[in-house]
Amino acid sequence: MKRSLATHAQPEKLTVRVQQNGIRNIILNNPKKRNALSLSMLNSLQTDILHEIEREDLRVIIISAEGPVFSSGHDLKELTSTQGREHHSKVFEACAQVMTLIQDIPVPVIAKVNGMATAAGCQLVASCDIAVASEKSMFATPGVNIGLFCSTPAVAIGRAVPRKVALEMLFTGAPISAQDALLHGLVSKVVLEEKLEEETLKIAQKICDTSRPVVSLGKAMFYRQMAQGRNTAYRMASQAMVDNLALKDGQEGIKSFIEKRQPVWTHTTDKAHK
Amino acid sequence: MKRSLATHAQPEKLTVRVQQNGIRNIILNNPKKRNALSLSMLNSLQTDILHEIEREDLRVIIISAEGPVFSSGHDLKELTSTQGREHHSKVFEACAQVMTLIQDIPVPVIAKVNGMATAAGCQLVASCDIAVASEKSMFATPGVNIGLFCSTPAVAIGRAVPRKVALEMLFTGAPISAQDALLHGLVSKVVLEEKLEEETLKIAQKICDTSRPVVSLGKAMFYRQMAQGRNTAYRMASQAMVDNLALKDGQEGIKSFIEKRQPVWTHTTDKAHK
Amino acid sequence: MKRSLATHAQPEKLTVRVQQNGIRNIILNNPKKRNALSLSMLNSLQTDILHEIEREDLRVIIISAEGPVFSSGHDLKELTSTQGREHHSKVFEACAQVMTLIQDIPVPVIAKVNGMATAAGCQLVASCDIAVASEKSMFATPGVNIGLFCSTPAVAIGRAVPRKVALEMLFTGAPISAQDALLHGLVSKVVLEEKLEEETLKIAQKICDTSRPVVSLGKAMFYRQMAQGRNTAYRMASQAMVDNLALKDGQEGIKSFIEKRQPVWTHTTDKAHK
Repeated sequence: MKRSLATHAQPEKLTVRVQQNGIRNIILNNPKKRNALSLSMLNSLQTDILHEIEREDLRVIIISAEGPVFSSGHDLKELTSTQGREHHSKVFEACAQVMTLIQDIPVPVIAKVNGMATAAGCQLVASCDIAVASEKSMFATPGVNIGLFCSTPAVAIGRAVPRKVALEMLFTGAPISAQDALLHGLVSKVVLEEKLEEETLKIAQKICDTSRPVVSLGKAMFYRQMAQGRNTAYRMASQAMVDNLALKDGQEGIKSFIEKRQPVWTHTTDKAHK
Repeated sequence: MKRSLATHAQPEKLTVRVQQNGIRNIILNNPKKRNALSLSMLNSLQTDILHEIEREDLRVIIISAEGPVFSSGHDLKELTSTQGREHHSKVFEACAQVMTLIQDIPVPVIAKVNGMATAAGCQLVASCDIAVASEKSMFATPGVNIGLFCSTPAVAIGRAVPRKVALEMLFTGAPISAQDALLHGLVSKVVLEEKLEEETLKIAQKICDTSRPVVSLGKAMFYRQMAQGRNTAYRMASQAMVDNLALKDGQEGIKSFIEKRQPVWTHTTDKAHK
Repeated sequence: MKRSLATHAQPEKLTVRVQQNGIRNIILNNPKKRNALSLSMLNSLQTDILHEIEREDLRVIIISAEGPVFSSGHDLKELTSTQGREHHSKVFEACAQVMTLIQDIPVPVIAKVNGMATAAGCQLVASCDIAVASEKSMFATPGVNIGLFCSTPAVAIGRAVPRKVALEMLFTGAPISAQDALLHGLVSKVVLEEKLEEETLKIAQKICDTSRPVVSLGKAMFYRQMAQGRNTAYRMASQAMVDNLALKDGQEGIKSFIEKRQPVWTHTTDKAHK
């Protein structure tokens, strides 16, 4: 299915965006360049993520890739001395912007990985809310081999896996397997390659069955409270629960449960009266 | 044994408290309501935790549950619009209070889980210092299915498991197995159901063999320093070591080790002279 | 090989330092006292770590131990009441200094563990950047058994493994296996005893193949940004990437990659012109 999507869409685009039934697939579409996160690729990815992001019929984003490499990270041609310091800054700022955007938008983002994800490509996986990988996928931060320590990827990876695992990856550049990525929390699920599409869609479908403003409120609060100490986190999160219950969909959910029927979501941020 | 304890105690109580040889068992005792953490249940739990908490003969608390469900989380009838915003606030504040209390009291608290722990029930497991689960136990944060994102459970769960695992649980509501809970750090031990009592008691017994003020000082410092940066953490913890050595039991421990004999604890916070 | 190194070196020294081809081996060399981290041992370790630390031909440090015990932690004779409060403070400060030093120096430090590592010995493993352990290795924080809660080891261990695992270790003093240490992130690799030397050297060798100032910049930034929130971390790390690219070795790495040849490092902090 992934292949057919890409074939039907415009092959010249760096990323392909296809949306159906609330699920937006964004496919990195430059396999010949190992889906390098060039400035243009980052811009294309950002545009596809932000496109009508507030529309109620968008519920979840899946980021995947054409070809055997998920993404090889930055385009090194943009990082030569010919380009200069200013340009380098621009590249890393654009990259950080996309990575943080993924966590700051109101819908969940799933990385669907089927192949090698290295450097900023590995950072992209680590930055998604959820990551499902096929067994053959691999993850590495090999910048050190070419004299460029993966310091920005380390921001995302260091927050996803234990410190020792992160540092061994960063200092040696050696890849870890999908199973080890699961063991250490870099991905949340590993499946057979032929099950990757199905298992990722299962997660996406479950998200589609829920209320959009409820998920949006929950996602935003998750990242906010995690940056705080425990007591502040509880104060914030308790308030979020009360706000959640004040939503029409919050009350509909409770009511439907008590009445033993399926909830009917409005997907709006309307408040229940009272 | 769990059953007989519950039978001998007052069956009308929401929680049953039984203490023997330093080990306090608190049993969630409303299996017909899936041990929902209603306001009364939370109050009863808090009372049983705090009961004579400063007495030297209390060394460790084990929280378990009657019936096949450890706890299903909040009582949804307390969260309808009929109850109103004020009441909702009260419920989440009472809940956060119990969850943080567990970490702030001077004795270790062990969750002994044999069944399903969902939403605030899963938060309760994540909030205990130690958690032992039978193989058949399951853990979930399904609030999203009924329009109420598990934002407060996420405070405890997000601090116990990797971020991706937490978000997949929160966004999909899907349960994870006891083995996955162990893999990701939500519980510290998984055993056969018929070994659950024995293995939990083994841990509790080891704690009973130690000095109460030493454990109390260590527990308090653990949570305090973990909220700090590394260097501040070391300053605080080094001071705690010095204070620990100034305790009678601190010196008795060292002396007994050097003299190759069993230590005899006073269990008091008395200082050794010098 | 480990044995022969120790035999050739001065046997009276508490730590043995041997350096070859950029790899410095520091061997805890007091097996009769289970490599206790006495004040003299800590001082000897610190001296061996800091020796000519800024020389370009030092690329990586491996800390290992003579005998069946990696290290049993503090020397309890230094912690009796006879020694007094001042002396106790001095011991814990010296210890924290070595532990933080390991993370603050410009070269990676690998713990090579083949045996029991307990209390401050376990803290030493947790404090290294990378840790490789043989299958027979064990890890414990048994201070509680002798009335001295492992509060300072908990600073390092609590930042390496999930909270529940740390607390079960700290409250019970019971050891965990190498496999469990790997599962929970206390070590990054577990191998057969007969492969320990080879696997550790493989990691060290990979580090030797990289540029020293690049690794140094990356290590320092890793610990700095991990202590910050996500957005500040990205600002710092993006700057580090730009600075990295401004190094001669940064540009040489990119250029060699584009030219499909091996990079030739200067290992200096010289800037590329432009």
